This record gives sequence, C-alpha cells and structure tokens, in this order.
Amino acid sequence: MLCLRPTRTTSRRARHICFSTWTLQKLPLTIDKPVPHDAEIARAQVPKPIATLAAEVGIDAASELKLYGPHKAKISLSLMDRWKDKPNGKYVVVGGVTPTPLGEGKTTCTMGLVQALGAHLGTNSFACVRQPSQGPIFGLKGGAAGGGYAQAIPMDEFNMHLTGDIHAVTAATNLLAAAIDARVFHEGNLTDKTLFQRLVASRHHKDAASFTPAMHRRLRKCGIVADDPQTLTPDEQRCFARLDVDPSTISVKRVVDTNDRFLREITIGQGAAEKGKTRGTGFDITVASEVMAILALASDLHDLKARLARMVVAFSQAGVPLTVDDFGLTGALTALMKDALEPTLMQTLEGTPVFVHGGPFANIAHGNSSIVADRMALKLVGRNGVVVTESGFGADMGVEKFCNIKCRASGLRPDCVVVVATIRALKLHGGAPPVVAGKPAPPEYTTEQLELVTLGCANLAKQIQNAKAFGIPVVVAISPFPTDSDAELALVRDHALRAGALDAVVARYHAQGGQGTVALAEAVLRACDLPARHFQLLYKDSAPIEAKATAVATQMYGATDVAFSQSAQTQLDKLTAVGFGGLPICIAKTQYSLSHDPRAKNVPPPFTLPIENIRLNAGAGFVTLFAGDISTMPGLPTRPSFMDIDVDDDGQITGLS
Amino acid sequence: MLCLRPTRTTSRRARHICFSTWTLQKLPLTIDKPVPHDAEIARAQVPKPIATLAAEVGIDAASELKLYGPHKAKISLSLMDRWKDKPNGKYVVVGGVTPTPLGEGKTTCTMGLVQALGAHLGTNSFACVRQPSQGPIFGLKGGAAGGGYAQAIPMDEFNMHLTGDIHAVTAATNLLAAAIDARVFHEGNLTDKTLFQRLVASRHHKDAASFTPAMHRRLRKCGIVADDPQTLTPDEQRCFARLDVDPSTISVKRVVDTNDRFLREITIGQGAAEKGKTRGTGFDITVASEVMAILALASDLHDLKARLARMVVAFSQAGVPLTVDDFGLTGALTALMKDALEPTLMQTLEGTPVFVHGGPFANIAHGNSSIVADRMALKLVGRNGVVVTESGFGADMGVEKFCNIKCRASGLRPDCVVVVATIRALKLHGGAPPVVAGKPAPPEYTTEQLELVTLGCANLAKQIQNAKAFGIPVVVAISPFPTDSDAELALVRDHALRAGALDAVVARYHAQGGQGTVALAEAVLRACDLPARHFQLLYKDSAPIEAKATAVATQMYGATDVAFSQSAQTQLDKLTAVGFGGLPICIAKTQYSLSHDPRAKNVPPPFTLPIENIRLNAGAGFVTLFAGDISTMPGLPTRPSFMDIDVDDDGQITGLS
Repeated sequence: MLCLRPTRTTSRRARHICFSTWTLQKLPLTIDKPVPHDAEIARAQVPKPIATLAAEVGIDAASELKLYGPHKAKISLSLMDRWKDKPNGKYVVVGGVTPTPLGEGKTTCTMGLVQALGAHLGTNSFACVRQPSQGPIFGLKGGAAGGGYAQAIPMDEFNMHLTGDIHAVTAATNLLAAAIDARVFHEGNLTDKTLFQRLVASRHHKDAASFTPAMHRRLRKCGIVADDPQTLTPDEQRCFARLDVDPSTISVKRVVDTNDRFLREITIGQGAAEKGKTRGTGFDITVASEVMAILALASDLHDLKARLARMVVAFSQAGVPLTVDDFGLTGALTALMKDALEPTLMQTLEGTPVFVHGGPFANIAHGNSSIVADRMALKLVGRNGVVVTESGFGADMGVEKFCNIKCRASGLRPDCVVVVATIRALKLHGGAPPVVAGKPAPPEYTTEQLELVTLGCANLAKQIQNAKAFGIPVVVAISPFPTDSDAELALVRDHALRAGALDAVVARYHAQGGQGTVALAEAVLRACDLPARHFQLLYKDSAPIEAKATAVATQMYGATDVAFSQSAQTQLDKLTAVGFGGLPICIAKTQYSLSHDPRAKNVPPPFTLPIENIRLNAGAGFVTLFAGDISTMPGLPTRPSFMDIDVDDDGQITGLS
Repeated sequence: MLCLRPTRTTSRRARHICFSTWTLQKLPLTIDKPVPHDAEIARAQVPKPIATLAAEVGIDAASELKLYGPHKAKISLSLMDRWKDKPNGKYVVVGGVTPTPLGEGKTTCTMGLVQALGAHLGTNSFACVRQPSQGPIFGLKGGAAGGGYAQAIPMDEFNMHLTGDIHAVTAATNLLAAAIDARVFHEGNLTDKTLFQRLVASRHHKDAASFTPAMHRRLRKCGIVADDPQTLTPDEQRCFARLDVDPSTISVKRVVDTNDRFLREITIGQGAAEKGKTRGTGFDITVASEVMAILALASDLHDLKARLARMVVAFSQAGVPLTVDDFGLTGALTALMKDALEPTLMQTLEGTPVFVHGGPFANIAHGNSSIVADRMALKLVGRNGVVVTESGFGADMGVEKFCNIKCRASGLRPDCVVVVATIRALKLHGGAPPVVAGKPAPPEYTTEQLELVTLGCANLAKQIQNAKAFGIPVVVAISPFPTDSDAELALVRDHALRAGALDAVVARYHAQGGQGTVALAEAVLRACDLPARHFQLLYKDSAPIEAKATAVATQMYGATDVAFSQSAQTQLDKLTAVGFGGLPICIAKTQYSLSHDPRAKNVPPPFTLPIENIRLNAGAGFVTLFAGDISTMPGLPTRPSFMDIDVDDDGQITGLS
C-alpha cells in the first residue's frame, strides 16, 4: 500500500520513499454512467474530517492547523520554519491549449491528476488551485471546484466564502481607496499647519503628539530627521503632511467580488458634503486587484507587508510616486490580510489534499495560485512527492506568467508542464463554429471531424512549444467527451508527440476520477524523473520593458513585433524614469487567441501586438501591459446561474453546477 | 464553587441550580493601576481554547461546534432542536443615557456584568453583542470589544473579520444590487419573447427549458398555472419575464464595510457598454443594509430565507412591489447567508462565554444583536442563568427598538434593563462644553461639578422612565472615571432611585473587571428574581404607522407630536396601500439627543418630531421613518485610527485601541 509507485530507483531510495509516503485514508468513488451533475457527485461523497487529512500529511494539529469548520483549515506559515531544511517534491504546472469560452477543465485535470497520484499510485501529491471569485459563480460559470469525478469537496464551501480570503482582499482594497480620496479631500480643506497637527495628534488624548512608525518612514522620504513633531519647520511640516495627490493618477479602483457592470464607470463624490470633489473612476472585480496579486506572490508575512507598503497608488502633482506607506496604511492593510496569507486545506473526492489559495485574474494579473501554498505543499509531499499547480488560460498566458512572474519571484523551478487539450477546443481552432455557454453545441462537436482536429492541432503544437521554450518537459492530457472518437483522440496524441511532447495521454478524470487518470499520472512521474534540464526565463530583469514585451509576444504569441501607443509609451517612459523598468511584465490580452484578437483562432498569421495602456503594480512586482481592452468587471447575463442556486431544508446548497 | 450565587430559593431549587451550573475554567485577571491600554490588557490574557469553553457550557463538539481557528467558533442552529424543551434563563438588556460622541461603554458594561456573574457569582451567564463594522474600527472609533478589564478576547479577531458574517452581508447585498440593475438593462434590450426564452433556458444545455422553483412562485404571482414553458401565451410570457422596474424606486444600495464618504452619492452605468442607462445612487456602510437587519431578526434558516425572499427592492412602473424572489435571488442570497446565521462564540477576559452576532445600525435599523444568539444563549444558561444583551445608543432608541422590534419578532420578554450612565455624559447634558474624540476633555469633566451632574440627571431619569414604560425593572450602572468624585457618584445614585430605578450601583468593570462589577450583578439578579411584571409594547401591530410614530415620539422622546413631510406622507400612503401598514416602525434619528436635534441635550423642551423620509424594510419587517438627515455612510477623519494599526514580527496586530 505504501510503496505502490513504480520507480526505477535504487532500493535505498525506495526505502526512503516508503518511509516518507503518507498513509492516506482514501475515499472510495462509486462511478456512475452517464456522469451525474457535479453537485450530485460532490454531495454523494462524505469528506473525511480535515483534521484527519492534516495529520496524515504531517501538519501539526496543535501549532499549524486552524480549523474553519470540519472540512476546511488554514495552515500556519510557521510550518515552513519547521520544515525549511526538508527537500522539495516535484513541481508540475497545468496549462492548456487556447481555451473555448467553456474552458478546458484545467482544475478538473489538476484534481484528477492528484487523485491518481495520491489515491492510486501511492505517491504523495498535493493540488494547488485558486479560490474562485463569486462573480462568475453567480454569473455565467457556476461552481469552479473541478468537475465530474475530479473535484475538490465540499464543493459548496469551495465556491462560497471559503475562509474569507477574497473578502479580506475586498476590505483591504476598499479601505485603501477610501483613504486616498479622503486624504485628497482633507488636504484640500486644511492649511499645512492644521493638517500636520491633526496627523501627529495622538488618538489617546492623554498622550503627546507623536509620529507613528509609518510616519517616521515618511519623514525619511522627506529627508527629515526628527523624533518630536514640535521641532519641524513649516517646510518640513508641509513635505511630511501634504501628499499632494494628482487625482488623475490614482490607480487604485474600488472592488466588489460581484459581476456588476454598472460599476465599470462611475462618478463618485457627488454628495454636497464632498464639496464638488467629484471624480470619474470605477470598480474592478476583487480578484483583479493588486492586493490579490500580492497575496498570491508574497513569500511570507514580512514580504506581504513590504509589498503592500510599496504599492504605488498615485503620483503627486510633482510626479513623485505615492505608496501605501505614505498614506500610513501599511499596518492596517497587513492586519486585514494576515490571516488570508495562510493557505486553505481541503480535499479531493478521493481524500487527497488540496490547497486553495489566491485567485489573481489571469490576464491583467498573473493568474496563478499562491507561492505560499506551492512552497508549503512542496515541503509536505517530500522529495518524491508531486505538487500539481494550475495556471490560468492557455499556456501562452498561464504558463508564461507562471514562469516569468511566479517562478521568478519564488525561485522555484517546474519539473513538468501538463498541457490540457479537448477535442472541442481543437475543432474550434480547426474552423468549427463558435461554442457558446448555455447553448447546444453545433453538430461538428458531436461527430467525428478528423480534418478539423488535424487543423486545430496547430494550436496544441504551439502551446507545447511555448512550454518547452522554458526548458520544461511537456505531457499532454487529452480530456475526452463521450462523443469524441478514438481516431480523433489518436490523432491528437500523434500531433502532440510530433510537436515535442514527452507523452500525450487520454485522461478520463471527468468520467472516472483518479482511476481514469493513472496513465497520465505515470507519464507525469516519468517526466519528473528526467534529469533536470536548464530552466530558462524568457527575459532578464535588466532588459528594458519594450524588450521584455517583444520576447513574450514573439516567442509565446507568434507576433512579429510589439507596437506601443503614444500614451502607453509616455506612461512607460514615466515608470522607467522613476525606477520601475526592472520589473517583469504581465501582458493583459484576450484568453481566446494566441494574439490580441479573440476572433483569431488556432495559430494566427503574423501580427503586431499593440500595447494601448500600462499599469504599474509595484507591490505585486510587475508592470501590466494592456494589449487591447480588457474588462476587469464582468457583467451578469440575462439568465444568471444564481437562478439555479438554492438552499434546501437541510441547509444544503443546491444548483451550484 | 458551583453554588456561590446567593438566592432565597427553596433547597430543592438550589439543588437544581447546583446541578445545572457550569464548571468554568476561569481566567484570573491581574489588575494594574492605572488601567493600561485595552490592547495591552487583551494581549496579556491567554484565552482558553474555544472548544473547552463550548464543552463547559454544554455545546456538543461533534455536531454543534464549528471551530474558526482556536479562539472562535460558530454554533450550529441544530442546538435549538436539541434544547427546545429546556427553560430559558433570565434576559437582561443593557441600554444607556443619551451618549456623548465617546460612547457610554455599554459593551464594556455588558462584558463586566457577565464576568461578575460567571466568574465571581457562579451564575451561568452569556453576553450577546454585535459584531463591529470595520468602518469605525479603521476610522474614528478603533476597537469595539469592550474596554479596560471588561473585554471580549482575542480583541484583534473580534475587530477584524471575525467569522465573515459582515462580509457575507456585503456579498449578498451587492449581488442583489447588481442583479437589479442588470435586469433593468437586459429587459431594456430584449423583446418579451427573447427575454422569456433566455430566462427559462437551462444552463445545462442538454436539458430542456424549465422553470426553477422561484420561477414557479413568480408564475403564481402572475396568476399563471403552468409546468411547461412552451405553453405560455405571449401575455403570460410578458407578465412572467418583464419585471418592468421603475428605476427611481430601487431602494437597495450597494454596500462596503468601509468609511467611504466619496461613495455617498454617485452615478453608475457610465460605461459605453451600459448604453446610457446611468443612474444616481450611493453606497451604504454594510451594517446599514436590510440584509444585516434580517440576519439579526431571523429566527432560523427557514425564516431567514422567507425574509430575504420578501424584501421589497423596487416597484414596477405600475406600482407593484418587486421582491428578491421576483428576481430569482432567494436561494442564492440564502446560500451566501446561511453560515452567517450561526452565532460566533468567543470569551471574556475572565473566560466566560460571549456570542458575537449581527450588527445592524442603531438608527436606521434596530441596533441590536441577533435573536438567534439570544435564544441560544437563553437555553444554554438554563433557568437560573442570565443572558446580557446590548442595545445601541440611548434607551430611547436601543431599548425601545429592542422591545418594539426585536422582542416583538422573537416573543422573548426581558427581565431587567441596565441603564449605563457616566458622569461625563451627565455633565454634558447638564451644560458642560462638548467632548470631542481625539481632543482633551474640558476641565468641567475632570473636576467636581455637582450642579452640572444634578442638571444632567434629568436625562438619566427620562431614560429610566423610558425603560420602565415597557414594564421592566431598571438597574442603573454608574461607570466611574478616575476623576469622578464620590459626591458626584452618590448624587447620580440618588437621582436614579428617585426616578424609579430598582437600584443604582457604581460598577468598576473598566478598572477591575468582574470583581468590580459584583454589586451591579447582584442588583441585576435581584431585579431578575422579582415576580414577572406585565411586559408591554408601546403599540399594537394593527395601529396605523402615524399612531405608532406618535406613541414612540411622545412616550420615549418627549415630543408633543409628529409631523410627516408631504413626501413622507405620500410614501407612507403608498406603503399602506400595498399592505405594509401593519409593520412596526424604526425611527432613525440622531443618537445625541432625545429629540431629532443633536444639539438639544438633556431633556429638550417640547418639540414636534419631523419625519422627512420613509424606507420600507419588508424583509427585516419594519418601516424606517427618518427624523432628519441620517448618514448611512461615515467618512474617514484626517487622522484615522488605521494609522495606529500595525502587525508586529510575531504576526500580532497592534494599535487597535
């Protein structure tokens, strides 16, 4: 039971594997045909107490486990101190071909893969996935815990508030936004002297005026050395107290975790008490906020605080970058976010462990789950274990950002990329009519179409090459629908191997869970056992932003070059001038094409990638380049999925899938 | 240890008391002088595991306890099924005199009282308090877990996200608001037929078009009997599908749990994709939402769902009230709120139990913690135990709404009202200069001023009479500051007894915790042991709204009469016409005066209460009458308390008090 994993290792190594392999209480699956709705499958399975799972994988109940009800737990970052000298396991990232609007099922593949590894091959394995936004859950997409027999459970808790991390991001971002506008308002109403006096007054009126630690940092920024507020000259008081925000440069938008199109563009401050200080702005969905990107990229509490502190939220009238720390908000935002930095432990349908943590948008941000969760999982699985983490959208976006942003920040190196492909997506790329959520698929998708599949395999080949560009071996997971023919599936495998994939395996995780994913898992293990290759990022920190953009656009998207609009170039020059040119880039573009044009399927003909706009994310640590108009606030459709959701008399949520 | 409580009961009853008295592991307090900052006191105390406390008070660990980390737990409502035949304990509500802007410390009194009862008198006792909004915590007020040696701990968890209930209210309210605007948008773009077809289409495209349960209820509202969408006539399709919202009647505002003055009045829908459908609206702070009031008033999950369903969120162009259920949101909002309906268990500094649950605004809503928590606590303490619950603002508002709204809904009857008074407040009412948060108190407040105190006791007398108007015995808690003189304190006691208080006791909970509150606790026990008196509400359900307003205004505030503005009268007539005249009322007025004028201190001369505006809260089950302009969105001051908040290297939050 403990040593089932087939290996070609020495017996000494094998003993080590046996020694460190978890004894997991597996949850047996009863497989029905046809596959029932996701919610039915999830509800039919009784999860084990999360405390049991935590103990099984080596988490200390007394010091590292914080239960959130019986089936979720936050894991303390102190675990990393205890395990810091332990070797990491293998690191697998799941990407995909360019997706259809229905998605390729990467979360489902991730769950199926760890179910196969953990419940069928006796290999320690952890899935690391993002927490889903409530916006799409109540909008068009529904639940996001995987699908079929490859899911995280309980799926209702996965899809609702989880342990509150996204709510914490909402609270932190909105406090920040409110504080900026309030500061502009108060600075506009007060003399330098009054402003200064109010800022340094103690809230405990018995105490004398004093500087907080953040105020001391602000003093240093102004070049002032002082401990006593009474000693500052009027000029020093002014420099310290007056941030002098240029309202047109405020880059923080307020957020809600709701699809609310009417908040995309709004005017605020129209109350009489706000004295005419109106301003045009908008709300983003919470997961599009920089605070969310920071949560996913921070390595520990200290780093979280440092990243929050250095977020540039506006510029002064003189063009000086103004940070969270200048507004005195570093501590408060850290207080709001500190619990959110602990990953949430859940389980798959077969009782193997899952971390759900972080959920940054996959175009304007880097679309990968958290570094903290991956690192912790890599320690927990141990040297011969496997961590499977998921990246958003196609490999040109998710895997690229996984490597160039997430691995650059973490220093971790992936051992294998899994590229998920469906016949449906390849047919779309081959020229079949569009597929639309909520509408029946055109007949091309339910009949054998070898020519369409062959044509569409060009997209798969390109995405395989994209992953290989980083020096990582690629395994293709072919996820079949019941109507896909054997000939279609064989064709995809053939094309994948010719494009340089180490292997390509039909993986029936949706229909059969881990049992249907054993062959894929074995292929992944073989890839991980290859001698380490030279992992390479696409560009160096020191390269100019323009060169970074060209590297990604030409090597990943197949563009010939990049064109910055005049406005984007001006913004870029400004950012570079104030010292942010050394950051990696995050290109925001449509997920539906390798290019910036969602209509250009498959491998588009040579094109120039236009960069229209730029956003500095100094705290997250990247510069977002907008290739076209990217919505950061979805809308609700006429018939939203919330209409299916109900709570029955037993208090169970129904209709989530 | 078990039978310390002094009683004059028979020995048989005494045995029963002994039998059902909890064995609490108390947390000894080390009292320092002068009283350290709240955060220092809270941090010096090590809380016991909340699972230990839960077991001590009779909560079943396996089925009723949901841990949220080691020091907080949600308690399942299934406890009420198990304990439904057990008798209730005594029910004590804490109110106060008309407060100063610094507050009278009602939460502190509540904590001190249960600490005295539970840790010093051996009486089972539970505190029930509201969850504080993050807005004031980061704005002006700071932490809200009590103060000095009478606090709920851990105070940082109390003041941050707790178990996410307020975030759930935010999510539910914002989904509702987004859904209303989106529905107006889509109805405006689609023909009746397309609108109908889209609404009844299944999200699983394999399935046929069908009606959801909420759609069946909508059909009934239209007088249509049908199971198959294909059978509806065009007129029936139109009635079913077209809500025909009059945008000017939309009463749901979006919410954030942040002090954000720039969101008070805004214009939404200004993006090009929204096709000119702009609308003036605003954000409220989350705790001002009707969903929060519903959370606090719902008796169980079934009632929560029913209340959410019947919330009137707008009127149609034809003047028909449109509910949450018409928008198909009943189930989704219930799914978002179901965990929030479970109260959160915490503990006092001395290890006695506290429920933190619900947090409705105390003027536009009823300002009392939840019915669910009070009911559960009344069962847990048992027949001879005491539940102390807190009501917002002065007794004219908090106690009045406690009785007329909360007890009307719950059917519970209070056994005693505690009216908290400070010399500071009485001096203010007696004519001393204003006290301002963050500024040193004028000298009147730190020197003996018998005349000012005597004059201000008129306010105390009126608030005692207000509580007695409901037929409940009153005990006055005099909360001393170090500078208050013995003569001042004696004066207050004298006035209180003359005004009809059963007792008036100097209670040193802030300086000494439970030990300093024993005399108050004994007085409260004596009040609770009095033969039950006739508890009476101020008005019947069947009285017209105008008569209800007159009853409250004349009997509680000392007004001579009530004047409805023309606009308010029109709104009232409309509400009455569509059947909402039988609801109780909730008068929204300033907390700083018995009248509607915050400058009118003490007992204002006879006045007419003006009602300017009316808001229907059909789900919460009351009609709010606005006596003047009541802000539902606070602002951040120039020097907000967030500037003091930090997280230290151990991950501890500092600066919360």
